[in-house]
Amino acid sequence: MRGEGILELKAYLEEKRAIVDRELKAYFPEPEGPASHVISAMKYSLFAGGKRLRPILCIAGAEAVGGVGTHVLSVACALELIHTYSLIHDDLPLMDDDDLRRGKPTNHKVFGEAVALLAGDGLLTEAFSLMTGPELRERVAPDIILKVIDLISRAAGYRGMVGGQTVDIQSEGKMADLCLVEFIHTHKTGALITASVASGAMLAGGNEEQMEAITSYGRNIGLAFQISDDILDIEGDSKLLGKTAGADEQKGKITFPAVVGLEKSRELEGELVEAAIQALEVFNKKADPLRLIARYIIERKK
Amino acid sequence: MRGEGILELKAYLEEKRAIVDRELKAYFPEPEGPASHVISAMKYSLFAGGKRLRPILCIAGAEAVGGVGTHVLSVACALELIHTYSLIHDDLPLMDDDDLRRGKPTNHKVFGEAVALLAGDGLLTEAFSLMTGPELRERVAPDIILKVIDLISRAAGYRGMVGGQTVDIQSEGKMADLCLVEFIHTHKTGALITASVASGAMLAGGNEEQMEAITSYGRNIGLAFQISDDILDIEGDSKLLGKTAGADEQKGKITFPAVVGLEKSRELEGELVEAAIQALEVFNKKADPLRLIARYIIERKK
Repeated sequence: MRGEGILELKAYLEEKRAIVDRELKAYFPEPEGPASHVISAMKYSLFAGGKRLRPILCIAGAEAVGGVGTHVLSVACALELIHTYSLIHDDLPLMDDDDLRRGKPTNHKVFGEAVALLAGDGLLTEAFSLMTGPELRERVAPDIILKVIDLISRAAGYRGMVGGQTVDIQSEGKMADLCLVEFIHTHKTGALITASVASGAMLAGGNEEQMEAITSYGRNIGLAFQISDDILDIEGDSKLLGKTAGADEQKGKITFPAVVGLEKSRELEGELVEAAIQALEVFNKKADPLRLIARYIIERKK
Repeated sequence: MRGEGILELKAYLEEKRAIVDRELKAYFPEPEGPASHVISAMKYSLFAGGKRLRPILCIAGAEAVGGVGTHVLSVACALELIHTYSLIHDDLPLMDDDDLRRGKPTNHKVFGEAVALLAGDGLLTEAFSLMTGPELRERVAPDIILKVIDLISRAAGYRGMVGGQTVDIQSEGKMADLCLVEFIHTHKTGALITASVASGAMLAGGNEEQMEAITSYGRNIGLAFQISDDILDIEGDSKLLGKTAGADEQKGKITFPAVVGLEKSRELEGELVEAAIQALEVFNKKADPLRLIARYIIERKK
């Protein structure tokens, strides 16, 4: 990536993140009434400094097929709610038992385990309310919105994220092969990343060829991102990773480097990024942000 | 309720329950693949002997406005998935810490806490996939389906069930007034019950007057059912209640009898049932199952 590309991408990510943050802030009410505690807990994790990768991918997916990014904001935000719920539940003592997330106390450390569980449930449920909102319905045909809800719920549920998380938890400390680690990564994180970029394109009216290309892009960067995180965990840059480096090994987590070694992991990561960019060939320069995001997976480590 | 009415209702509930069970069984795959454990956990609680009250209310709501009950089956089943997820999460040690549910070991006792949490997450997520399925889309306009998804997600989320559950957990062992116990009951259980009967009517094309009437019915029976359960918990019929009698008091749960006494609770219950039946005045005999269900709340205790 030339220096110019990095600057361009940084400006793009910054701009879109600000738009998403503004939308999320406007959506959630000030906590009040008897249930204000759970609203506070939901907002605590939602505004704990997330990079908004999934919303940005949704927006960039819409732009790639010639749509307007801000028109898909409700779904972009819903994806962040789903991602945030999964982090809150993952951090609970009965799962990964993490005290810190992005340098701040995890949700249950601040609000207690019961309210953290309910805050996660509340965020997941609210995501679907967001996707049916009037702003989206004014701009997108209702049958397309229904297809997107189906796409996202499949990616988030037992066929996707929940399934991957189950296998991840059950495999801790066990011997793993390439097949298993690929299953975990493509389901636990890859499915929602793919759904993010695909939902944006679908809402913006992407045709069959475009949907196929963008889905292939999503699958490739989804897996590349996770391998990249695995590598960062070993190479020890906690700041880039957003969590304690070396934590995966300590927990007996199944990672790509643990299964195929560091060198082979880097090779795979590179191949996936190339395949992702290749998949975008059918698009014009409106897909440049997606291309830059793919390159960034590798470049951020240099 | 005359003996005839009870027999009629029993036959109706039995018939609808069988239809819902058949639909749920057909919908979920045999557990296979790496994530089969979480599918087994989801199905374990889904087929643990639930009365299917929410699905039946959805079907009866559709019938009351002249619709065909089987046409709303996807949403009826989705409501049962949401109800089941809430039970699994409620039973977790970090919430109510229950070992038994309907006489069987709770989900986390069988599958462990992590998988139980994920099974709940999976059921909640899948509910929204079910509501976007092709069978429903063939019969109901997509914008009506979107409205129903919004209605149900609001009732299940922090504005409804999740909000009520939060206040319930936080109020345990504390002094409560009528206002607080009413908030908990109308949100924790009432909201989803109201959404069940209202979603059925909405899908079947209920007009504004009908929707208002059926929503009023739902609110009244939702609260009446919960007061009835509170009374049963004291009067000690564990079989009717489906859980250990006296458990509420032991846990310091806020109940109607604890706040206003047993006699006043019975009085309130009766008034709510009457108000529910009153609300159905705009409907013809197609709303008879709803009328019988309301009467049954009191009659089941005799």
